Amino acid sequence: MNTEVLEKQTISLMNTISDIGAATAVLNWDQETYMPHGASMMRAEQISTLSTLMHQMLTGENAKDLVLKLKDGNATSQNPLMRLFVEEHEKAVKLPEDLVKKVSKAQALGQDIWKEARSKKDFSIFAPILDELLTLKREEAECRGYADNRYDALLDIFEPGATVAHLNPVFDKLRDATSTIVHAIEPVKHTVNDAPMRQHFPGDAQMAFSKFIAEKMGFDFSYGRMDLTAHPFCTSFTQHDVRLTTRINEQDLSSCLYGVIHETGHGLYEQGFPIEYARTFAAEGASIGMHESQSLLWETIITRTEEFWEFALPHFAKYFPEQAKGLSARDMYHAVNTVMPSLIRVEADEITYNMHIILRFEIERDLINGTLATKDIPEAWNAKMKEYLGVVPSNDALGCLQDVHWSFGGFGYFPSYTLGKLYAAMEWKKIQEVMPNVHSDIANGEFSGILNWLRKNIHSYGKTETPGEIIKLVTGNPLSEEEFVRYAYGKVSSVYGIQLA
Amino acid sequence: MNTEVLEKQTISLMNTISDIGAATAVLNWDQETYMPHGASMMRAEQISTLSTLMHQMLTGENAKDLVLKLKDGNATSQNPLMRLFVEEHEKAVKLPEDLVKKVSKAQALGQDIWKEARSKKDFSIFAPILDELLTLKREEAECRGYADNRYDALLDIFEPGATVAHLNPVFDKLRDATSTIVHAIEPVKHTVNDAPMRQHFPGDAQMAFSKFIAEKMGFDFSYGRMDLTAHPFCTSFTQHDVRLTTRINEQDLSSCLYGVIHETGHGLYEQGFPIEYARTFAAEGASIGMHESQSLLWETIITRTEEFWEFALPHFAKYFPEQAKGLSARDMYHAVNTVMPSLIRVEADEITYNMHIILRFEIERDLINGTLATKDIPEAWNAKMKEYLGVVPSNDALGCLQDVHWSFGGFGYFPSYTLGKLYAAMEWKKIQEVMPNVHSDIANGEFSGILNWLRKNIHSYGKTETPGEIIKLVTGNPLSEEEFVRYAYGKVSSVYGIQLA
Repeated sequence: MNTEVLEKQTISLMNTISDIGAATAVLNWDQETYMPHGASMMRAEQISTLSTLMHQMLTGENAKDLVLKLKDGNATSQNPLMRLFVEEHEKAVKLPEDLVKKVSKAQALGQDIWKEARSKKDFSIFAPILDELLTLKREEAECRGYADNRYDALLDIFEPGATVAHLNPVFDKLRDATSTIVHAIEPVKHTVNDAPMRQHFPGDAQMAFSKFIAEKMGFDFSYGRMDLTAHPFCTSFTQHDVRLTTRINEQDLSSCLYGVIHETGHGLYEQGFPIEYARTFAAEGASIGMHESQSLLWETIITRTEEFWEFALPHFAKYFPEQAKGLSARDMYHAVNTVMPSLIRVEADEITYNMHIILRFEIERDLINGTLATKDIPEAWNAKMKEYLGVVPSNDALGCLQDVHWSFGGFGYFPSYTLGKLYAAMEWKKIQEVMPNVHSDIANGEFSGILNWLRKNIHSYGKTETPGEIIKLVTGNPLSEEEFVRYAYGKVSSVYGIQLA
Repeated sequence: MNTEVLEKQTISLMNTISDIGAATAVLNWDQETYMPHGASMMRAEQISTLSTLMHQMLTGENAKDLVLKLKDGNATSQNPLMRLFVEEHEKAVKLPEDLVKKVSKAQALGQDIWKEARSKKDFSIFAPILDELLTLKREEAECRGYADNRYDALLDIFEPGATVAHLNPVFDKLRDATSTIVHAIEPVKHTVNDAPMRQHFPGDAQMAFSKFIAEKMGFDFSYGRMDLTAHPFCTSFTQHDVRLTTRINEQDLSSCLYGVIHETGHGLYEQGFPIEYARTFAAEGASIGMHESQSLLWETIITRTEEFWEFALPHFAKYFPEQAKGLSARDMYHAVNTVMPSLIRVEADEITYNMHIILRFEIERDLINGTLATKDIPEAWNAKMKEYLGVVPSNDALGCLQDVHWSFGGFGYFPSYTLGKLYAAMEWKKIQEVMPNVHSDIANGEFSGILNWLRKNIHSYGKTETPGEIIKLVTGNPLSEEEFVRYAYGKVSSVYGIQLA
């Protein structure tokens, strides 16, 4: 078979699998937005059927045959799409079907039990199923394989190439720097507050203002839309159909506004993959961490500058005339940049957020390696909260039961959030170098320069390069905490009027 | 292999195919309700992929093997689900893949060209592709097979068991009776008008009032919902998730209200299939005609009685206090039962509607049998309009180009609409016999007796019986126009104060 025919057949199979994946994503989106409650059970069956089908197609005889021929013909070194197909196939066949079934059963059970445990604030209810999930995930890690640390096999699912050996020193230094900030702010922490964001904001106006900002950022609503859900997310059914969701808290504009900006950052990445990658495995983010860098660059860096509020305040005043009275861009800049140690990860500020992640990383790493026992999680959690942030949860619901991730066995996912912050800071440094006018562009509401840079330097790769390769291509450096720490010191110094670093 | 294992495997394959079908239906629903415009092309790819997959699974080696064993083991006579599976498989394998592809290509082209022809009011633009579709559909009819008339093979797709030999005399008598009505009304046609329905009605109140009526009818919104679309429809992703759609015309309440009642009739059928049929081929209507009988029984009979408006008027007055002033139930009864020959099928009243269908049936039948040439359609159409309804379209857009059906080769579909009316009238006669208080129930807004009767006598079969068998089981008689004609004579006499029959 000649290479052209072989590649055509491989693309065709990828198209089919991607289309089923898109349909599955539509079913999930519908479930969160509009589906009637009574449909849950049947919807679960439908999603399970489509997922099984995708797995069968990726691991079946046809796929096996294509992979053999692709490797034989050396097509994988010529065409990144072929390489991706082979990689995804080889990852999928590594997991025995029996294990996949056991994991998926434990996941379903895990989520139900976690909800109960959280509502009863009692970790001991969750411990047995969590222990089972950990056993299965250790087994999965062994199947996936790793060079050095068992946890690496799970990290690799979300962040290809990430290892404990690499993350340990990065996270250690980040933890120390964050401690420095937290301690430096302590004496002046009440001098800055977020009152301007915590007024009463009518829901419809919140949606309209947030949508206006999303459009300004460059999100194309002819290829996407925005709806309300209990938990905000971004999902994509090809570059031509990207769905954002948000929620409204009428007493706090941040939840909707910065939620939408965050999801729009993800959405711009999804809309930005080259169209020729549509319906293939390349039309995806390079990793969860790289995806987070796209949302966080917009949410925590660009739109929390004083320049952003110079642009946004007059518009804010149109949507919220009463609430805007007497507010300056500087007031808004302060209001959206307060730093305050707290118990709940998803409510944490940009700086202390990383402490929540580092804590989870350390616990997960030790659980997977068997050096921390499941029953000892609450104690370890609370001790680390005290040490890293100086606050201790009064119960498990405010502590080790707060996140959904472990209930579906998502060990290895948490670090991506912080990697996103580190990538974003590195990208931001580069953007400021190559676009010396970027701050005045922002003050003028002109974001197309930034978006074009992201399109060219990040989005255009899709999944054809690893995040490590991309960040090196873009910045010349491998992943490190340095830029983030420099950025954080600068931000905190400016907001709190203190001297750091 | 024992029967139990064989049946389990067959059910499992049906579950998979049904789940993919449900996903396809979600994609279609999303496309009509919320999908951004830009996504059309990719969505078409996704739907095509899922449809191909379903066809492959229904006709593939696994299905073939199951069918052989099922027929061998005589399992089809014991279990209606097994019989349905074999029937669907055998229908699917009759069509050569090459023909299926040609038809689907011509369909796509047909719809584009039809839109252009309609907007230019010029049938000659549409004629060549329509001719091609007819040639392909004749070929399809030959593949499907028939005993007597080639058109029977196409009728059978939508109405299993229907034949030209059976429909010709039924439609002839119905046409004559309708002519009698039209002529009888002519001298008094301006004595009754629909002004009460043609006031200004705010959209939100229309939606709320219509939803209230849908709930009263028994539609369970915990297993369904209602949205806005350009063209109203009902779709179902299992009995647990039934979606209705409607549209609003603020100058005419009928469009939304009776549209919702119509779709709710379909929706009640879909919600009413036995839950053990979920995710199998039995969780469907017995035929398009039987499905229409469920929508039309509610839309044209039950909710156009004077008793219905005795119940509904006080509620109507709550939603529309200004508009309700001075109106009686009798006024509303008149307003929703006017009869007036007109050009457009979808705007026609309950009585003259059948003329539009009979005209299409006769033209389709002759086209498929080659006794009418494609180029002669406009002439035949206009002549029949003049003869049957006394009105003649001034251009093809108001005539033979008004419907989408032929543009996708849907020959054989139109008769189902009238069959639905005939079934509905037969069901209504039976309901009145077994529920002597049904009219006072309606006046009290008590519809559960009717719904329970429909559940038991129609819905409970799903697709396990043919429409012909169901109507005979329910009424003791085979399909005929008699009950509809009796019903129509009675209604028109009462509304127009004339004597008929």
